[in-house]
Amino acid sequence: MERVTESGAAPPALGIGMVGYAFMGAAHSQGWRTAGRVFDLPLRPVLAAVAGRDADAVRAAARRHGWAAAETDWRALIARDDVQLVDICTPGDSHAEIAIAALEAGKHVLCEKPLANSVAEAEAMTAAAEAAAARGRIAMVGFNYRRVPALAYARGLVAEGRLGALRHVRVTYLQDWLVDPDFPLTWRLEREHAGSGALGDLGAHAVDLAQYLAGEPLVGVSALTETFVRERPLLAGAAAGLSAGPAGGTRGRVTVDDAALFTGRLASGALASFEATRMAAGRKNALRLEVNGERGSLAFDLERLNELSFHDHTEPAVTAGFRRVLVTEPGHPYLEGWWPPGHALGYEHTFAHQARDLVHAVATGTAPAPSFADGLQVQRVLAAVEESARNAAVYTPVLPSLPVSPVSR
Amino acid sequence: MERVTESGAAPPALGIGMVGYAFMGAAHSQGWRTAGRVFDLPLRPVLAAVAGRDADAVRAAARRHGWAAAETDWRALIARDDVQLVDICTPGDSHAEIAIAALEAGKHVLCEKPLANSVAEAEAMTAAAEAAAARGRIAMVGFNYRRVPALAYARGLVAEGRLGALRHVRVTYLQDWLVDPDFPLTWRLEREHAGSGALGDLGAHAVDLAQYLAGEPLVGVSALTETFVRERPLLAGAAAGLSAGPAGGTRGRVTVDDAALFTGRLASGALASFEATRMAAGRKNALRLEVNGERGSLAFDLERLNELSFHDHTEPAVTAGFRRVLVTEPGHPYLEGWWPPGHALGYEHTFAHQARDLVHAVATGTAPAPSFADGLQVQRVLAAVEESARNAAVYTPVLPSLPVSPVSR
Amino acid sequence: MERVTESGAAPPALGIGMVGYAFMGAAHSQGWRTAGRVFDLPLRPVLAAVAGRDADAVRAAARRHGWAAAETDWRALIARDDVQLVDICTPGDSHAEIAIAALEAGKHVLCEKPLANSVAEAEAMTAAAEAAAARGRIAMVGFNYRRVPALAYARGLVAEGRLGALRHVRVTYLQDWLVDPDFPLTWRLEREHAGSGALGDLGAHAVDLAQYLAGEPLVGVSALTETFVRERPLLAGAAAGLSAGPAGGTRGRVTVDDAALFTGRLASGALASFEATRMAAGRKNALRLEVNGERGSLAFDLERLNELSFHDHTEPAVTAGFRRVLVTEPGHPYLEGWWPPGHALGYEHTFAHQARDLVHAVATGTAPAPSFADGLQVQRVLAAVEESARNAAVYTPVLPSLPVSPVSR
Amino acid sequence: MERVTESGAAPPALGIGMVGYAFMGAAHSQGWRTAGRVFDLPLRPVLAAVAGRDADAVRAAARRHGWAAAETDWRALIARDDVQLVDICTPGDSHAEIAIAALEAGKHVLCEKPLANSVAEAEAMTAAAEAAAARGRIAMVGFNYRRVPALAYARGLVAEGRLGALRHVRVTYLQDWLVDPDFPLTWRLEREHAGSGALGDLGAHAVDLAQYLAGEPLVGVSALTETFVRERPLLAGAAAGLSAGPAGGTRGRVTVDDAALFTGRLASGALASFEATRMAAGRKNALRLEVNGERGSLAFDLERLNELSFHDHTEPAVTAGFRRVLVTEPGHPYLEGWWPPGHALGYEHTFAHQARDLVHAVATGTAPAPSFADGLQVQRVLAAVEESARNAAVYTPVLPSLPVSPVSR
Repeated sequence: MERVTESGAAPPALGIGMVGYAFMGAAHSQGWRTAGRVFDLPLRPVLAAVAGRDADAVRAAARRHGWAAAETDWRALIARDDVQLVDICTPGDSHAEIAIAALEAGKHVLCEKPLANSVAEAEAMTAAAEAAAARGRIAMVGFNYRRVPALAYARGLVAEGRLGALRHVRVTYLQDWLVDPDFPLTWRLEREHAGSGALGDLGAHAVDLAQYLAGEPLVGVSALTETFVRERPLLAGAAAGLSAGPAGGTRGRVTVDDAALFTGRLASGALASFEATRMAAGRKNALRLEVNGERGSLAFDLERLNELSFHDHTEPAVTAGFRRVLVTEPGHPYLEGWWPPGHALGYEHTFAHQARDLVHAVATGTAPAPSFADGLQVQRVLAAVEESARNAAVYTPVLPSLPVSPVSR
Repeated sequence: MERVTESGAAPPALGIGMVGYAFMGAAHSQGWRTAGRVFDLPLRPVLAAVAGRDADAVRAAARRHGWAAAETDWRALIARDDVQLVDICTPGDSHAEIAIAALEAGKHVLCEKPLANSVAEAEAMTAAAEAAAARGRIAMVGFNYRRVPALAYARGLVAEGRLGALRHVRVTYLQDWLVDPDFPLTWRLEREHAGSGALGDLGAHAVDLAQYLAGEPLVGVSALTETFVRERPLLAGAAAGLSAGPAGGTRGRVTVDDAALFTGRLASGALASFEATRMAAGRKNALRLEVNGERGSLAFDLERLNELSFHDHTEPAVTAGFRRVLVTEPGHPYLEGWWPPGHALGYEHTFAHQARDLVHAVATGTAPAPSFADGLQVQRVLAAVEESARNAAVYTPVLPSLPVSPVSR
Repeated sequence: MERVTESGAAPPALGIGMVGYAFMGAAHSQGWRTAGRVFDLPLRPVLAAVAGRDADAVRAAARRHGWAAAETDWRALIARDDVQLVDICTPGDSHAEIAIAALEAGKHVLCEKPLANSVAEAEAMTAAAEAAAARGRIAMVGFNYRRVPALAYARGLVAEGRLGALRHVRVTYLQDWLVDPDFPLTWRLEREHAGSGALGDLGAHAVDLAQYLAGEPLVGVSALTETFVRERPLLAGAAAGLSAGPAGGTRGRVTVDDAALFTGRLASGALASFEATRMAAGRKNALRLEVNGERGSLAFDLERLNELSFHDHTEPAVTAGFRRVLVTEPGHPYLEGWWPPGHALGYEHTFAHQARDLVHAVATGTAPAPSFADGLQVQRVLAAVEESARNAAVYTPVLPSLPVSPVSR
Repeated sequence: MERVTESGAAPPALGIGMVGYAFMGAAHSQGWRTAGRVFDLPLRPVLAAVAGRDADAVRAAARRHGWAAAETDWRALIARDDVQLVDICTPGDSHAEIAIAALEAGKHVLCEKPLANSVAEAEAMTAAAEAAAARGRIAMVGFNYRRVPALAYARGLVAEGRLGALRHVRVTYLQDWLVDPDFPLTWRLEREHAGSGALGDLGAHAVDLAQYLAGEPLVGVSALTETFVRERPLLAGAAAGLSAGPAGGTRGRVTVDDAALFTGRLASGALASFEATRMAAGRKNALRLEVNGERGSLAFDLERLNELSFHDHTEPAVTAGFRRVLVTEPGHPYLEGWWPPGHALGYEHTFAHQARDLVHAVATGTAPAPSFADGLQVQRVLAAVEESARNAAVYTPVLPSLPVSPVSR
């Protein structure tokens, strides 16, 4: 018999400190716990500490998710010696303050999307990230869907030229949890916390993926937004995220959009269309996208995330068609660590992939993708969407429009 | 042995005269030939005469499609005593002149979509139709997709309130026959004949279906359009429709859009989004739509036209989901005349259904749907789309917006 | 103006006489009426006469479906000078007598499937067909699904070697019209008329398609059959086909199978599995098949009959997958006559295709496929299935096993 | 700041010892690590030790997968005081010896499927499990697919009577990793290690699921099996599982089946059909099943494991159809611990669910499902399949046929 100590032959530790522990905190925890079990990593992620305001709740969360310590002040978490990377899983209104403080304290940062609630905040964060990069610190924004294997592989096909010049990108992100007019007024429905509604929550993913897959930014948009249910029951106490607590009889005003529709142009001249809504009855997490180019097309649906549809337009018409590629082959991105072909991955695997790539970036000192600049570019698009929606949908440039980070994996 | 004479016990004849005999003419011919074989009709359609400019070609078409006579002048066709209904299958630039002449001559009229190439023409045609209605003459526009059984049934579900208040209508109509930059410059790519490009050809169907299913008009739109391939090979001689003839080395200017993206609002406040393109590699005839309401949702894809997806949001969440209804049951619209459940119908059946309903309208003197006013409303939407596209996508009202005809079947 | 006479420049007539006018009769009528409108045929099918026992009903059917004359005795129909081809759409128990009489009278014959209710009958019919062939007469059995374009194309892929050596063929044909225990006792549930149940009705198609696609016969089978509902309400009067007439309170015995499951071996050693049932709730016409070979695979579902799934196993694994080929391209079988790509065909088109190919066979004097010998081979397989089912599923050779006809098109 | 000790407020530990660490070992490790992070468990699984013959390899596996100690002898692992539950992930030929020793040593046991390589071994194991049960020890067999949420939910629908009396169960399990004739001769292709081929590997799952969903055993079967590629390259050294090592030029004999087809009858009289193969090009992990009953039907595909298709046959035909239920709602089995609706789970989640249910069984002393008796019943079916295949497919009873365990969750 032999005692196995992970710290023995294992790679050096990378101490993680996480702020926030709701839905995103649970998903990130699973990612950090799992990445080193599945992939060969140059550093070993250690779940050092988690921070939250409620002492009992954060302690319970630490125990549930495997964090070694709990803090009630995110500043204390940043100050810890055993924390080298700060993972921010809070609502958008606190991202800028925490991220900038962590970077200035010499920590690496992973920040959930959307990067911030305003362009100004995102610009400050990006400046902080650039300053920190000069000191060897890494900052990444958590657009985790880039790390769905099917989408990472899709980007590769576009980058290789398998689609040729792009003509169309269309992305719809449809959910239905607000169809019920009695769903309560959580923080995601309040502008001061969430920044925007379906636009920032779902549209941010849609915009990032469109730009990521195309490899080029949106340069202008035209938008309609709508709030169908303008008042909702107030929550009795504090409640976070998607979980609805007991609601009293009084109602409060919804200050964000229920749905956002927008069209736009990419730098190359390709057309793009977007729809983000939480009012599509029966659609649970329907992030669907299609890209059409001169030489081929791609289609994807997050509800079937192991599949990529690929049409090769250079084939003879009689045998051409959208093929359903099961993206579970050893040669597909991230699949080296998982199961044999045909064994499905799920939603949370994207967080293990994100952790994997971030650990590599930290170990090698390379710039990660998506960077804070990518997050800023998305924020500028969202701001242009809101501006267009306020101005009778008039086409509104995204200024300045930033290049999209190359893939780091 | 007994000789069977159709004219014996059969219902009285309704003489049809068709103008044009290309793709649409072939499809209409099949509809006229078939309707009375499948449905019990109060009048018996007789394929009296077809008109076209080229004497040899029109004679060959008459023989191929079963028309008893051929004319080289549509005015002569209208003048025939054995023609009571004129079916117009020509490009859009001749619709107004032929339709108005036919109505003034006391004939019933079926006119292919889009109703016209301009709002002014469509208004004149609608006025003529209204004047003719006072004299008992019927005028219908050929939005045949209303008569796909799945879509007719879908309209019924919306009308019954199975979807509740509508939130979203989204329609994409994707084809790919212009992806090849060497596809030649046919009449469909010339503004003077076609009026517009993907917008009038595909977008007209999309707009009509959105309004038909919702039972209410679009009241405003915001649009982007694009022509990706601006010059194409000239056709050597005259060529019509989708068939590409031999192309010489010279190129001419494409004067219509390759793609049109637009968003809009329906009268009730529901949001709508549209995309019409002929540049979506791998999509052959992908008219896809989805309607989301407070109580349910519908989805449809013309490439699988026997199926309707229906989600009933009033069901318990654990057993709810989009169900694939095979719209081939005896209780579904138009299915009384066809095959047992599960036996697929195809594209051309819509023309038999159109013929069936038009014959009933003629026999009973009831107003048909879609009426010329419905065609005018679509035309106004298309005009607003083009105006918005010219004006930086600014939201452009559809004025005046007309009510949608109730279903006649 | 010019009167167009079809008989003028048109090809010479081929007089058709049809026996039976229920579901199959309606479908065949549509095929005969349509084939010459869509395809260039060397002979012009003329719907000369239809025969049935009930004088009023056959006259009404003639009028409805466009037959010029009605007969109440099939022998009189065969004797008509204006009939050169006899199309047999009656239940299986009368096929042999009519077909042999027609062939002996010098007529061409199209006989609905299954060819007969017994191997002995099928052998006699095949002998008659061979004798008639020597006199230039054509005999074809109506396995119409061979002429679904997707399946005709699938056969071509197998014949070209795109699948390599075959390993598996699996076919299920699922319907649900007998799930209701009160569905009445029609002729299809009586052994003396139908020969067998799901086996002959659905399994015959499944067996023919398996052999057709593989290009080789089944050489042995092992089978289970079952009748779940053993008594059903008697029909008040005579009723035919799938339509259930008014049922009285008394019940009669079902003398055929509700379901048949069998496995088998093809001549090459590939394995085959089959399931035919009318008790699969929710499956309306689910003829689904898959073929796996060393180099590729094919899949098909009759409920989506315009689509063929094709997997090319020689491709790199990362881009390989079942592609959905929309079998509506000009280069696909039978599509030369129909609509542009993406415009769906339906069930009844197979009858127009059958008519097209039969007319070519008659005009050129070439042996048609599927021949009566193909029908006999299917009959031998069905007999072996029934024998195996009676003998505790023991593997039962198909003796002698006949080669499958090459495709004629 | 506060140090969080899991052992403080946390539930008492349950020490796990795992034998084997290849594909199944990795999957089980992930299950044990994750279950307590996602579900509220009465005992806290502790990854105490892993055993394997190769000292270096087992130590590396321990480090990779998070096991605290490594053993090179499974007897030493069983003897450890910190191991209360032995998890057997070795090939089938060692299951009986290890499981019986562990049970006799007073340990709980989880044993991978198939339970054993022969009925005799399975009987001995079941006897040992029954004896151990009297002493409060739990024994479960690892048919993990019972714990795919969609299949657990499907079983609930059948148990509630939503399908009524069953008519048909059909299961195909298709893979393609043996299509390449140069895939090497791993232990899975050797009868002495694997017991059988596709039959035991894939067919065992298929049989267990059929019996689980139906809630009743198979009582007899008729079978064909085949080995298409009879010789394969020998592995250079020892290699396990699915991974192919370098192969020399010599070939060895494949002693198991490549494919097994069988039909059968369930105790109620319902018909069942099965197909298990590793030669279906393009099918990676296609475990597809369908159940048809008098009142409804279910369908499932493991390649889309978050979806269940459900047809309710009591609905009006016009709105009935297979609905795609996304089995990710809070009310679905196992979903209480995971993500919001629409966020996909993957293959390995089944092992966390298995761990969850096994921990509950241990804590409460209740009999687990699937029990060793369930594993024995599957083994008897597999033995009957092989016997039938040897005897010209003759229908072979499964004797004695055991009842299926009720669900424990």
